[in-house]
Amino acid sequence: MAPFDALYGLQVDAAGGEEARGRVEVSNRVKQPAGLVHGGIYASMAESLATIATAEAVGDGKATVGYSSQTSFLRPILEGTVHAAGRPRHRGRSTWVWEFDITDDEGRLCALVRMTVAVK
Amino acid sequence: MAPFDALYGLQVDAAGGEEARGRVEVSNRVKQPAGLVHGGIYASMAESLATIATAEAVGDGKATVGYSSQTSFLRPILEGTVHAAGRPRHRGRSTWVWEFDITDDEGRLCALVRMTVAVK
Amino acid sequence: MAPFDALYGLQVDAAGGEEARGRVEVSNRVKQPAGLVHGGIYASMAESLATIATAEAVGDGKATVGYSSQTSFLRPILEGTVHAAGRPRHRGRSTWVWEFDITDDEGRLCALVRMTVAVK
Amino acid sequence: MAPFDALYGLQVDAAGGEEARGRVEVSNRVKQPAGLVHGGIYASMAESLATIATAEAVGDGKATVGYSSQTSFLRPILEGTVHAAGRPRHRGRSTWVWEFDITDDEGRLCALVRMTVAVK
Repeated sequence: MAPFDALYGLQVDAAGGEEARGRVEVSNRVKQPAGLVHGGIYASMAESLATIATAEAVGDGKATVGYSSQTSFLRPILEGTVHAAGRPRHRGRSTWVWEFDITDDEGRLCALVRMTVAVK
Repeated sequence: MAPFDALYGLQVDAAGGEEARGRVEVSNRVKQPAGLVHGGIYASMAESLATIATAEAVGDGKATVGYSSQTSFLRPILEGTVHAAGRPRHRGRSTWVWEFDITDDEGRLCALVRMTVAVK
Repeated sequence: MAPFDALYGLQVDAAGGEEARGRVEVSNRVKQPAGLVHGGIYASMAESLATIATAEAVGDGKATVGYSSQTSFLRPILEGTVHAAGRPRHRGRSTWVWEFDITDDEGRLCALVRMTVAVK
Repeated sequence: MAPFDALYGLQVDAAGGEEARGRVEVSNRVKQPAGLVHGGIYASMAESLATIATAEAVGDGKATVGYSSQTSFLRPILEGTVHAAGRPRHRGRSTWVWEFDITDDEGRLCALVRMTVAVK
């Protein structure tokens, strides 16, 4: 668990070549001033889950680092749990591309994150 | 200061209609496992600075929330300070679009973030 | 059929609230110098299909225009047909967000496009 | 001049390691149904200009291809000329990242395109 992931409370539930899944309990500390979960949490969850899952899948002690991310915010989350579920859409030699759905406890889609990971 | 901004240590240095600037001291708690600053920090800084600055500029008690963000990671930051400096590229009635440069203490460009803010 | 869509040869196969699908025959005129289909074709197909489908779905004579697009290029297409298939991930009052898969004749994923459409 | 660039009428005015500039005359053939310039034109211009300029700058007969692009539409263009002006924000060994401003004849900012080019 990376220090920053521990700070905002990431729980990793699955991380491998087929999927990456995790969650964050909503508390005051992950919110922005208006009381919504801060959008940086979604980008952070996707980056951590994608880099961990890609490293797990490619093995060989290869390093994985974030290369780019694109987040669209669709619906605010105010309480409960933030769920992130991603699948790899491209598994290249030098990059993997993941698409994550961010959902709330009712399963409503709240954000989309596309995360590109560099494999070194 | 939002709870999450306090958690990762955002310092806001300027926030208005012409620019938005802030910084985060690098410590273990903002890092990912390989010892680099976590990319989620860049997205978080840009979102907070852009929403604060846009709210300041439009006034009238209007709410500003993140609408989308796109981050490209160019060079890792391992120590010192993360600097974010943004300028508004579009000041619309319902959205503002900001472009941020993320730099290190040597002024090297480390990431680009384009942040779209919805004004409500 | 818009003039530009006719120019690059878009065929619309489905356009409604549940999906948007279309294709472009690969010929020299949609290629960049190295002989690959130009990436602008993927962005163009997604924008046209998403705006047509959203307009069809919301009805009421409302106008739909592109708001933003993000394309990731995964694998080149050199011949055959470019297929674009999208589904709406968000159907809001003022914006719809679509995700498109761009595939070749063998069904291989060649690009991803996220397209946000403004409804006015 | 690539076949597709000729089709939509790209004029390249500068292409090198410091900048990339070009334009397209607005005519019916680059428009979408509502009479605006099609957003795919902006993405196409940025991709062509960035790949040509990067190839020119790195030399050595190296190939450059589009890797990803992100476009934000800010203001429609209905007539005159579409101007694209980009500068490299990152000149890496394997990727270059460009930021383009798309403007109209009055110099008003109409779109932003960030274009990542792979160097092979």
